Amino acid sequence: MYVIGERINGMFTDAKQAIREKDAAVIQDLARRQLAAGATALDVNVGPAVSDAQGAMLWLVETIRAVTNAPVVIDTAKWEVMAAVVPQVPGEKVINSCKADPEIATQYVGLAKENGAGLIGLTLDADGVPGNVEKRVELGAQLITIAMEGGLEMNRLFIDPIILPVNVSPKNPSNCMAAIAQLKAFADPPPHLVLGLSNVSQRCSNRGLINRTYLAMAVAHGLDAAIMDPMDTELMNAAITAELLLGKMIYCDSYLEAARHA
Amino acid sequence: MYVIGERINGMFTDAKQAIREKDAAVIQDLARRQLAAGATALDVNVGPAVSDAQGAMLWLVETIRAVTNAPVVIDTAKWEVMAAVVPQVPGEKVINSCKADPEIATQYVGLAKENGAGLIGLTLDADGVPGNVEKRVELGAQLITIAMEGGLEMNRLFIDPIILPVNVSPKNPSNCMAAIAQLKAFADPPPHLVLGLSNVSQRCSNRGLINRTYLAMAVAHGLDAAIMDPMDTELMNAAITAELLLGKMIYCDSYLEAARHA
Repeated sequence: MYVIGERINGMFTDAKQAIREKDAAVIQDLARRQLAAGATALDVNVGPAVSDAQGAMLWLVETIRAVTNAPVVIDTAKWEVMAAVVPQVPGEKVINSCKADPEIATQYVGLAKENGAGLIGLTLDADGVPGNVEKRVELGAQLITIAMEGGLEMNRLFIDPIILPVNVSPKNPSNCMAAIAQLKAFADPPPHLVLGLSNVSQRCSNRGLINRTYLAMAVAHGLDAAIMDPMDTELMNAAITAELLLGKMIYCDSYLEAARHA
Repeated sequence: MYVIGERINGMFTDAKQAIREKDAAVIQDLARRQLAAGATALDVNVGPAVSDAQGAMLWLVETIRAVTNAPVVIDTAKWEVMAAVVPQVPGEKVINSCKADPEIATQYVGLAKENGAGLIGLTLDADGVPGNVEKRVELGAQLITIAMEGGLEMNRLFIDPIILPVNVSPKNPSNCMAAIAQLKAFADPPPHLVLGLSNVSQRCSNRGLINRTYLAMAVAHGLDAAIMDPMDTELMNAAITAELLLGKMIYCDSYLEAARHA
């Protein structure tokens, strides 16, 4: 599973403070701990309340690169920040994210292709998050087509069908699963399917339980990446075990440890 | 979810001893505790080492019926025991189980129909457990057809695609999921799909983790019943949460408690 650690994000108090005070040790510790816990890549998001988003993002990337060459996932909704930062990121990187608007997506595919970056595309257009499976699949298919036309290989594309909180939208989690299964079958080789997992349990009780149960269900339908907290041990255990049960690894008594250090 | 409590089974030491000594209190305590934990029905299996299987089964059913009218699931591989016991069980009952052999299955469907019982049919024939999805679906479809011909309603039929341990058969868990999805779509209304869940983790480490992760994955594909331990709190939590995430119940902060006492 392509686990994208979510913790270097200005939405979290510790990261927010570290970004404000340029406290490299806190960020590097978050990077190291997430990777030790089994993260494949590190999401990097400066958070909403930063005046110089571009400068903060570049500082974060530089700070992380001082301790690891793991993939960084540049997470900003601002095109100008993305366009300025991505060419300056050494090593493996992923753009997070673009919408499924043909003009916008073409621009982002170009940026990804030019810079050897991966790209996360959302099944989201000017009308917002689709209320049904069909529209999600249509927008996902559009992203796949634009990526193909732009020469971006399918293993560099991540499609995010956008999970909403189960307490707000009871049908959304099953719609997402159905869209994942259909989009996984849409191209061969297929793109990655990814979710911002913790959104499924926003403002719910039993958040950990809901997150790890949904992760197993979504993996059963073809999800192979997630933006999540790898330091949530039970969540990582569920992710690894779900892939074991799909036959993606062979059982051994220490399979949990083996997968974390694969 | 139709949760069939697995604990009244002579394979477990406490139940075995209680059956041998006709200790009603132990059996009744297992019945009450499983129901309090959220079981819908109670599996009843005398275990392998009993000389008078029919007498032991009748004593178990009578002992359970003294404290609850919950459905009992008569679990024996012996036709003569099944045929003798089922007509003597008051209240709701399920026959567990028959193979997908036309002659045998017709006999079992008749017994179920005559006695107002449900029936668990295994996707298993003289060749053993199928090694692929297609054969499982073929045998499941055969069971559905025989049940229809015998006048057994689909909501009285449970199909068990037979889960094998993941350490023995790495492809079996995903084959089972695929068969569940196909068989659930085969008839409208559909039959129940059931698994003897704990078999997936036989002789594995992390049994609880493997059981509850697989349960969530199988529920995502249409599993709606399981023979399992309802007193495994984390497993029950996963079962309830998986159905929440399928939209089968509306979220409230106390959804776990609400589902247990539904």
